[in-house]
Amino acid sequence: MEDLKTRRRDKNIPQTIPFDFNYDVDELKSNCENLVGYIPIPLGVAGPIPIDGNSNIHVPLCTTEGALVASVNRGCKLLRLAGGVNTVLSSDGTTRGPVINFGDIQQAHEFSKWCESTDGFTFLKHAFESTSRYGKLTQVKPRQAGKQVFVRFKAHTGEAMGMNMVSKGTLEAISKALEEHFPNGKLVSLSGNYCTDKRASAMNWIEGRGKSVIAAAVIRKDLIMQILHVPASDLLQVYTQKCLIGSTMSMCIGGANAHAANIVAAIFIATGQDPAQVIDSSYCLTLLEEIDDEHIHASVTMPCVQVGSIGGGTQLPPQKAAADMLIGNYLEEESRAERLARNIAAAVLAGELSLLGALAEGSLVRAHMALNRK
Amino acid sequence: MEDLKTRRRDKNIPQTIPFDFNYDVDELKSNCENLVGYIPIPLGVAGPIPIDGNSNIHVPLCTTEGALVASVNRGCKLLRLAGGVNTVLSSDGTTRGPVINFGDIQQAHEFSKWCESTDGFTFLKHAFESTSRYGKLTQVKPRQAGKQVFVRFKAHTGEAMGMNMVSKGTLEAISKALEEHFPNGKLVSLSGNYCTDKRASAMNWIEGRGKSVIAAAVIRKDLIMQILHVPASDLLQVYTQKCLIGSTMSMCIGGANAHAANIVAAIFIATGQDPAQVIDSSYCLTLLEEIDDEHIHASVTMPCVQVGSIGGGTQLPPQKAAADMLIGNYLEEESRAERLARNIAAAVLAGELSLLGALAEGSLVRAHMALNRK
Amino acid sequence: MEDLKTRRRDKNIPQTIPFDFNYDVDELKSNCENLVGYIPIPLGVAGPIPIDGNSNIHVPLCTTEGALVASVNRGCKLLRLAGGVNTVLSSDGTTRGPVINFGDIQQAHEFSKWCESTDGFTFLKHAFESTSRYGKLTQVKPRQAGKQVFVRFKAHTGEAMGMNMVSKGTLEAISKALEEHFPNGKLVSLSGNYCTDKRASAMNWIEGRGKSVIAAAVIRKDLIMQILHVPASDLLQVYTQKCLIGSTMSMCIGGANAHAANIVAAIFIATGQDPAQVIDSSYCLTLLEEIDDEHIHASVTMPCVQVGSIGGGTQLPPQKAAADMLIGNYLEEESRAERLARNIAAAVLAGELSLLGALAEGSLVRAHMALNRK
Amino acid sequence: MEDLKTRRRDKNIPQTIPFDFNYDVDELKSNCENLVGYIPIPLGVAGPIPIDGNSNIHVPLCTTEGALVASVNRGCKLLRLAGGVNTVLSSDGTTRGPVINFGDIQQAHEFSKWCESTDGFTFLKHAFESTSRYGKLTQVKPRQAGKQVFVRFKAHTGEAMGMNMVSKGTLEAISKALEEHFPNGKLVSLSGNYCTDKRASAMNWIEGRGKSVIAAAVIRKDLIMQILHVPASDLLQVYTQKCLIGSTMSMCIGGANAHAANIVAAIFIATGQDPAQVIDSSYCLTLLEEIDDEHIHASVTMPCVQVGSIGGGTQLPPQKAAADMLIGNYLEEESRAERLARNIAAAVLAGELSLLGALAEGSLVRAHMALNRK
Repeated sequence: MEDLKTRRRDKNIPQTIPFDFNYDVDELKSNCENLVGYIPIPLGVAGPIPIDGNSNIHVPLCTTEGALVASVNRGCKLLRLAGGVNTVLSSDGTTRGPVINFGDIQQAHEFSKWCESTDGFTFLKHAFESTSRYGKLTQVKPRQAGKQVFVRFKAHTGEAMGMNMVSKGTLEAISKALEEHFPNGKLVSLSGNYCTDKRASAMNWIEGRGKSVIAAAVIRKDLIMQILHVPASDLLQVYTQKCLIGSTMSMCIGGANAHAANIVAAIFIATGQDPAQVIDSSYCLTLLEEIDDEHIHASVTMPCVQVGSIGGGTQLPPQKAAADMLIGNYLEEESRAERLARNIAAAVLAGELSLLGALAEGSLVRAHMALNRK
Repeated sequence: MEDLKTRRRDKNIPQTIPFDFNYDVDELKSNCENLVGYIPIPLGVAGPIPIDGNSNIHVPLCTTEGALVASVNRGCKLLRLAGGVNTVLSSDGTTRGPVINFGDIQQAHEFSKWCESTDGFTFLKHAFESTSRYGKLTQVKPRQAGKQVFVRFKAHTGEAMGMNMVSKGTLEAISKALEEHFPNGKLVSLSGNYCTDKRASAMNWIEGRGKSVIAAAVIRKDLIMQILHVPASDLLQVYTQKCLIGSTMSMCIGGANAHAANIVAAIFIATGQDPAQVIDSSYCLTLLEEIDDEHIHASVTMPCVQVGSIGGGTQLPPQKAAADMLIGNYLEEESRAERLARNIAAAVLAGELSLLGALAEGSLVRAHMALNRK
Repeated sequence: MEDLKTRRRDKNIPQTIPFDFNYDVDELKSNCENLVGYIPIPLGVAGPIPIDGNSNIHVPLCTTEGALVASVNRGCKLLRLAGGVNTVLSSDGTTRGPVINFGDIQQAHEFSKWCESTDGFTFLKHAFESTSRYGKLTQVKPRQAGKQVFVRFKAHTGEAMGMNMVSKGTLEAISKALEEHFPNGKLVSLSGNYCTDKRASAMNWIEGRGKSVIAAAVIRKDLIMQILHVPASDLLQVYTQKCLIGSTMSMCIGGANAHAANIVAAIFIATGQDPAQVIDSSYCLTLLEEIDDEHIHASVTMPCVQVGSIGGGTQLPPQKAAADMLIGNYLEEESRAERLARNIAAAVLAGELSLLGALAEGSLVRAHMALNRK
Repeated sequence: MEDLKTRRRDKNIPQTIPFDFNYDVDELKSNCENLVGYIPIPLGVAGPIPIDGNSNIHVPLCTTEGALVASVNRGCKLLRLAGGVNTVLSSDGTTRGPVINFGDIQQAHEFSKWCESTDGFTFLKHAFESTSRYGKLTQVKPRQAGKQVFVRFKAHTGEAMGMNMVSKGTLEAISKALEEHFPNGKLVSLSGNYCTDKRASAMNWIEGRGKSVIAAAVIRKDLIMQILHVPASDLLQVYTQKCLIGSTMSMCIGGANAHAANIVAAIFIATGQDPAQVIDSSYCLTLLEEIDDEHIHASVTMPCVQVGSIGGGTQLPPQKAAADMLIGNYLEEESRAERLARNIAAAVLAGELSLLGALAEGSLVRAHMALNRK
């Protein structure tokens, strides 16, 4: 604490930037060097929203963008009236992708084949898992480029988002493999941008990273009219032309949605996740489909929700409290991190429906205004 | 304030989530509905870093990820010793891309041609600019898809990031154009995901959005050894194999960098920018080139830095103070928002060099360890 | 001819590879060095198909893939019964994108700004157009990357596809600009992969290259049942899940179609176009939309159809005859190359509808078989 | 043959389009419906080029683009002097990606999990392989999107490119699986654009399709000067700025090369491959690296070379003869199709070096001219 005050004085930090954390500041050293205070981010709450039978999930959203909380809240109401949201977790694993250089393409080829072999995988798994109690290596995917090999390691990381765990395990596994089996190989970089971490890549869209989750609801058309004030047909038209066609026109990766990133960013900041991972954690394919004359099936498919319930910012008491709120009650057998990812998807679904409704209504209102002017 | 307390009670917000903002809470209503408190994000400071002749810029970074501030700080030291950073602003404009539906492809074609004509542009510009004192429409780019037309409006928005300004102007311009000239056209959605906002798109990578900035420095190789503890040749190898080749292997958009998103996210949160816009604000092409036997030319090219110095979260006193710190002294004739963007790029350059050095050093250390074990 | 025979003997070319061109072999020297004969590609014909009021267009298709001609033919029949196809040309211009290196980012910035200025454009246009009677420079689009600048030159090239014309003009324009105005700039490569030519780029999808064309038809649902043997609703479902959603899942550029490339490749080979340009000439956004209870609106949007009616392979008599067939009668004021592009789009529309029908029917048949087995 | 003559008369096919195939026309019916003749494509030959110890491979190139054969020929000479090319085959398999619809996300999830299970894979493999003697299912990769599942089937297809084989096997496997295990699932389309076939997808770039091959050579710098007339340093600069940086700027998939598509297209037409598959068969990462003061390591990495030595156009005698030329002598244990893919990569490497040299030399010449003018 004295450090902090001295540093504030030395750096001329103005008093408008607060520093009176109401918890143990010293622990923050592992989160942030050269600490001079904190920035308070307003926290709003939307919901409740029934998810997988748990009827009372509230969504904590840190935002300074007016209308976001209200919009998600309206979506939650629609989903509540529709009977709630179901979710699925389709994949789970954090990745690290080093690059290794060899003397020629034949050596690189042999290393690749070894990584894909049972022997190779067993060796790598053993070395990897020697570095952590929780990390479980599930996949090793080599890809040769000239005389280099990029290898994507994927591991279950328990309650943690797991970047550090996977980095440590990967470093050990690769180093041992090179030492014992491929002395001609040289680890050029532990991250070869083949992970990929904190950038928009097709790799992650196609392969997934972190938790891959899907959330869905079946919604009566009359509820859409009641809550969103637009006919379902208008909602579908906006959806198709914006999310499917517009995103194709502007060539997006994971961008076939209305505004998933707004909800993901707000929850990530509230719950202590890494905000730079919003980039692909917000990849989202929103799907709306008329399933019969009276109902719409709505879903969001999010392959890269990178969250943890321990480690990093999730350790800070306020962030932890916000995460607890979003996790709600959960089954014993499921991880809290997994539940977080599922419930984020449900919140995104709420946000998607609400904004699509607003856009459809905006056009509707405008059309009426135009009519009246004439 | 009473609202806030009542809401906390109703929603069972735990005391670990603070609510004692030391500034006027009522103003927050325009930033965040259903306010229940705030989440404090630790603020660290890196620097100083000399930018465009201003020698004393400090970089405010909100993060819970250990090592980030220290890493950027090390990069700042290297850039200080190298004599500082120069920047360029190559483009500036916020965009909105509505989708309009027509009866057939011929009507859509006529509308597109009109948008591209001098008459059309003049009409649209007049209508657009009637809605704001600051917004100046600079480009209208239609693209037909079947019988729909997507139009990308681009405008200077002064000190504001400008999404609301551009939305308002675009709505007015399109509505008037349809009413007066194209009654068969129907505005389907004010955002047709052709803007694009808060998603990873090639559109923004290629066309730019917000401020397009470049920051560069010339660095003596011995400084790289002194500060980063690696030979320049190792730095270049890691750079090439990770940033250029690795990013190509995993097919990134704007991902040819080491970890630009970490720095951008931390600054965006500190300075009240929209964190969902980190997605493409962190697009970054890092370039390292040996320019002679003794020097490296290092640069970052960031086409989509979407920042403002007024509006949204930048109005909150702590965020504003952090933004002031990063802006530092600036020339009268340049905008504060522009200076913010330039200095963000300089901070990213610091972060890039530092992490690339660390990755190169990590491999180096590992190679030594391996040698020793044998 | 004697050369050819000698070379065949020297290279041991087997007699199964024919060499009896029934036209002037010597002219071929400008098309193909080290000539040893020719490969005959079977030519089939589909149609006729009414396009823009011209009722009798036949589609020449060079293919060795069974079923392709028959499939396009079926689509032509559907479009004939539907009353034909309308087309639109939304843009036209061939591009070349050199890369120029400067001493620092400030110099590169000044060059970029100059390219965007009226003075700069006028200078470049004058120099460019001094190299050809037909090439008309229409756009110069610089983009800075560190201390390099990539510039995309776009020009109308009359009846030619125009790569050579644009290369020549660009070389002259850039060389003069550097000599007279930017002596510190160095032309590194006349093609900086910023054109882009013969590779899959988002640049071309977003900006277009060659002819950007759209073809559309309104089709009665009962005709879909009659010709394609599936209900329109099935066609729409296959379309949405394959072309829109599937292409998003696999992250395509310009891939939101059923099999546009098959038709484009077959026509390109038949009519002497450059087959390596099939890559983006086959970019196609297929759109099917129910416009009322009885009709479907179907369209293809193809931004990069790179064709010519003179130059390259189009000079060879058989290729020229095939091109004439596809061009048919055309209006005096339009170019033949433009008409070729429009009619290619119409043929693609035929192919799209037919294959989507076949896929829908296949699923239908399979469902029936499954029912029967039970 | 009589059919053909009648059809020519009926369709007014001009005599300039030849029809005198000197082989059995009736067999062509399976390659091309509505046959009216053929288009002769000039065939040139480049080489020889030593590949994997076989010193005498000639490269057949069908092209109408002047300079291509000469350019590849020059590259072959350089590679000959450098001691030849080595190749690696890193993966092999053709794919088909159907889309299946379910009643809800839970059912879709169960199907996905089943596909990934040993039981599921065994079932699918058994059904798949019941349809062909040659097709061997090697991978089943499901990916859920809402209540749909896309599944990518990958199979070895022997000497055939294998699309038909894989389609047939996939249809049988999916149909059986739905009938016997997932009666609620509906096969919407046998191709869900998740294969992907004949379009530019990140999926194929990342996962590979057909043969994934790498070809490399070590080249003395003085040979580069001797044959390409440029210093190696200039070659490297053009390479880096064009292939690596330029392709990133224009956001390519598989486009980090000089002009791979030219060579691939020319060989595909010559050897009877499917020319629409040039799109991703020409995906190529070209890598040039200085490995010591005197040598450059040059390689091409091509993940999607989709070729066969039987079936389709490869059955036609002239095409077969051209394929035989490129295959040359080959080892008993390797497949001819595999050898074709490897040798295509070697030919592409020749073409890459030659064009990069020409671009570097062009800039050089230009610079000299500029100097002289002054």
